[in-house]
Amino acid sequence: MKPVFILVRPQMGENIGSAARAMLNFGIDNLRIVNPRDGWPNPKAKALASGAGSVLDSALIFDSVQEACQDMHYVFASSARERKLDKKEISLGEAISECKNLLDEGLKLGFLFGPEQSGLSNEDIAFADKIVFLNTSNVCTSINLSQCVMLFAYEWFQGTNSESSLSRTKNVYSSASKEEIDQLMKRLILNLDIKGYFWPQDKEKSLKLYLHNLFSKLPLNSSDIRFLHGLIRALSEERKK
Amino acid sequence: MKPVFILVRPQMGENIGSAARAMLNFGIDNLRIVNPRDGWPNPKAKALASGAGSVLDSALIFDSVQEACQDMHYVFASSARERKLDKKEISLGEAISECKNLLDEGLKLGFLFGPEQSGLSNEDIAFADKIVFLNTSNVCTSINLSQCVMLFAYEWFQGTNSESSLSRTKNVYSSASKEEIDQLMKRLILNLDIKGYFWPQDKEKSLKLYLHNLFSKLPLNSSDIRFLHGLIRALSEERKK
Repeated sequence: MKPVFILVRPQMGENIGSAARAMLNFGIDNLRIVNPRDGWPNPKAKALASGAGSVLDSALIFDSVQEACQDMHYVFASSARERKLDKKEISLGEAISECKNLLDEGLKLGFLFGPEQSGLSNEDIAFADKIVFLNTSNVCTSINLSQCVMLFAYEWFQGTNSESSLSRTKNVYSSASKEEIDQLMKRLILNLDIKGYFWPQDKEKSLKLYLHNLFSKLPLNSSDIRFLHGLIRALSEERKK
Repeated sequence: MKPVFILVRPQMGENIGSAARAMLNFGIDNLRIVNPRDGWPNPKAKALASGAGSVLDSALIFDSVQEACQDMHYVFASSARERKLDKKEISLGEAISECKNLLDEGLKLGFLFGPEQSGLSNEDIAFADKIVFLNTSNVCTSINLSQCVMLFAYEWFQGTNSESSLSRTKNVYSSASKEEIDQLMKRLILNLDIKGYFWPQDKEKSLKLYLHNLFSKLPLNSSDIRFLHGLIRALSEERKK
């Protein structure tokens, strides 16, 4: 089992190609791309991929981060800048340790990488469980996309090819997939909407973002999801008079 | 004191620029270039350097590896392939440890990086004290020049900034107190009770236990508690008919 690397709205084909090569240098071949700016396939990506054309050929293309993360159990978002989000920020080293444990449990996990100019948006990051930051020198903090991908792949390779055994916590129930959480959130939003919760309208976006961030940080399993469905159903019911 | 990075006969300006940026990402700004194929300065290098133009501006250009290494006390040669040379080969991690010790002793040291197509020649390597090899996946062993520079700079930075590799566990809001969680749960239970959730009665105990366990494992902060109070209030409301 290996992590899936997800490039979100990458702009330059060259960077996509270089990223694919960097991934394969360290044995990662699961690439997903959300809305590549210049369409797909991209001949510039192919040119820069060097020996890693196969990674591009098997890349999956998605229209949204949500769809790209749908079947993931756990998502890490890479970020170079500090975010004022209430989401745990961990170092790359810590992320790799967690990543190994999660993969050992049979979970599917992804790393999100943002576009060249802006990085991931807060809306993108809402789909992630944790933020991974890279410590750089203060003199030059902006890391090229493919270089960033390289470091993640490199650290993953180093981490998984060392003998060090880490302690891990087993869950009785398997973690909920993004899809399960998504369906739960949809139900909640629907019910809240009926009750007029998202009013006035200018609050709707921030409320939904909060909800999203909240759900993505909660360590819910499939049993919890069923339980919460029951709660929402019960709470939302009209009382018989 | 920092190591000096020496690019030997680099071919593409783009790679020189990307290498400069990668160096500065991790605080290294001493660049030397031996016989760049397309002359110097190189506008393509400048374009790819992004915020690291200063590294290019202050780069020193040499006609031979020998001259570029003249004032060095110790030189490491990077290599992706195995060499049949009677020279010690060490891992990147080992090189960085040695590098730190040597710099602490006040010695001047350099890392040699070879041209894109062929890597360093055996003649180039003759100027080095040790060979540093990078462990890659066997599927794709050829690392892009600037990516290779990136990994060296990254490892150097990690090795010398160990305190900065600590986690930045930043909580914008403080964790909710047990009392806050308790009050939230009480409200939820009250509202669920009104809706007849705890019926039939023999289920009440196990449902409340589940609820309790669920809340005690969720990493909620005070802001989340307020948010969830709002959700429960909204969901529980009777619709105006």
